[in-house]
Amino acid sequence: MPLDLKDGERLDDLQNGYFVIQSRSRFSYGIDAVLLSGYASVKKDEKVLDLGTGTGIIPLLLAARTEGKHFTGLEIQEESAEMAERSVAYNHLEDRISIVRGDICGAVSTFGAASFDVCVSNPPYMIGQHGLANPDERLAIARHEVKCTFRDLAENVSGLLKSRGRFYLIHRPFRLAEIMDVLREYKLEPKRMRLVYPYIDKEPNLVLLEAVKGGNPRLTVEKPLIVYETPGVYTQEIRDIYGDGR
Amino acid sequence: MPLDLKDGERLDDLQNGYFVIQSRSRFSYGIDAVLLSGYASVKKDEKVLDLGTGTGIIPLLLAARTEGKHFTGLEIQEESAEMAERSVAYNHLEDRISIVRGDICGAVSTFGAASFDVCVSNPPYMIGQHGLANPDERLAIARHEVKCTFRDLAENVSGLLKSRGRFYLIHRPFRLAEIMDVLREYKLEPKRMRLVYPYIDKEPNLVLLEAVKGGNPRLTVEKPLIVYETPGVYTQEIRDIYGDGR
Repeated sequence: MPLDLKDGERLDDLQNGYFVIQSRSRFSYGIDAVLLSGYASVKKDEKVLDLGTGTGIIPLLLAARTEGKHFTGLEIQEESAEMAERSVAYNHLEDRISIVRGDICGAVSTFGAASFDVCVSNPPYMIGQHGLANPDERLAIARHEVKCTFRDLAENVSGLLKSRGRFYLIHRPFRLAEIMDVLREYKLEPKRMRLVYPYIDKEPNLVLLEAVKGGNPRLTVEKPLIVYETPGVYTQEIRDIYGDGR
Repeated sequence: MPLDLKDGERLDDLQNGYFVIQSRSRFSYGIDAVLLSGYASVKKDEKVLDLGTGTGIIPLLLAARTEGKHFTGLEIQEESAEMAERSVAYNHLEDRISIVRGDICGAVSTFGAASFDVCVSNPPYMIGQHGLANPDERLAIARHEVKCTFRDLAENVSGLLKSRGRFYLIHRPFRLAEIMDVLREYKLEPKRMRLVYPYIDKEPNLVLLEAVKGGNPRLTVEKPLIVYETPGVYTQEIRDIYGDGR
């Protein structure tokens, strides 16, 4: 099919049958999005919302890997949303993926209460303007809580999920205590947690979480997810998640 | 010195110059107490309280390893407290360790507010009577929240610590979300966390935490603490913590 790439754009092969448009000047998807997509469990016919979808990487990965019925990507930045829409069209996924322009803060009024089985989010990791040295506002919005705090996200996810609906997120371990606390405040009970360690003898730099709306308190902390065997060489588990033998 | 061991008691060599009296019919200290003592940082001249000290293992280990000025072990069960006192006397540690009979729930009125630099606790792991199948009440009190809930513990620790005082605890990962939440409610901010994995490819079964009274939110999740190399063979780090080359 014809592909209308703009200046500075490239087409990345996701190795799952689909492709995603990326841009040198914008926030590119990283291992975070890939790990989160691998961690999220989506069942047949479920409806899924990705809050802050960027260029749509998570819906594209979940559409390939799961039998979910429909995936919505919510994105506040017009340029990213437009790139995501072109990727959806290029992969002929218009029936399964919708990209919606909008703010996480107003997401419950955009979609209606209790309208999703699953929510996923790879939110900005940094608190407010803290340490904000990035002059490019587009990158700042993706990395810092400029538009939306973690509390805003939890409040909206809690409103958007059906009872017993699942929320999958990836974040930085340094915010774990606050995250657990705020999730529980909004009746999103942490049920599974997996820490991501760059090497087995290093501190973890990412944490994957599954929370269940209205779930009972009991957390399963899973075995460590180790990224590298040696510098530049992924572990077998990471190669399996990428699914391309890299 | 003369040692007055009772029927069914034995003297365990702590390999640090001290000994502890243990009993076959009572709760014996386990790796939990040893890991917690190794995790707790006690500075010169600090005052330390161990809430639920049992037979006094944690004060004995901390007295050997640190320059803390004084260690108090609070214990509700008379027989355990009496054994702890005999261990203190046997090791000539009466000047540095006191054993106090009493309830964690009333600890602030027992000792007075803001009276300790450091609190440590290896509390019962199980919620209330949940799964309580132990007909021996003495063991039940050590393992289940029969006398005191985690919330009672956090409330009293918060009252007992000076501003910026530190609380070290060990618990089960399945209660981590609740623990983080309750600690923060009582202004005990989780600052360091280390998960204890029996093997590198298994789920963790213990979690070590350091919380600071009035601390700012920022948690450091540390590298994994792995217990076994192979079945029955401790890792070097565990051997170092035990300090006896076992």
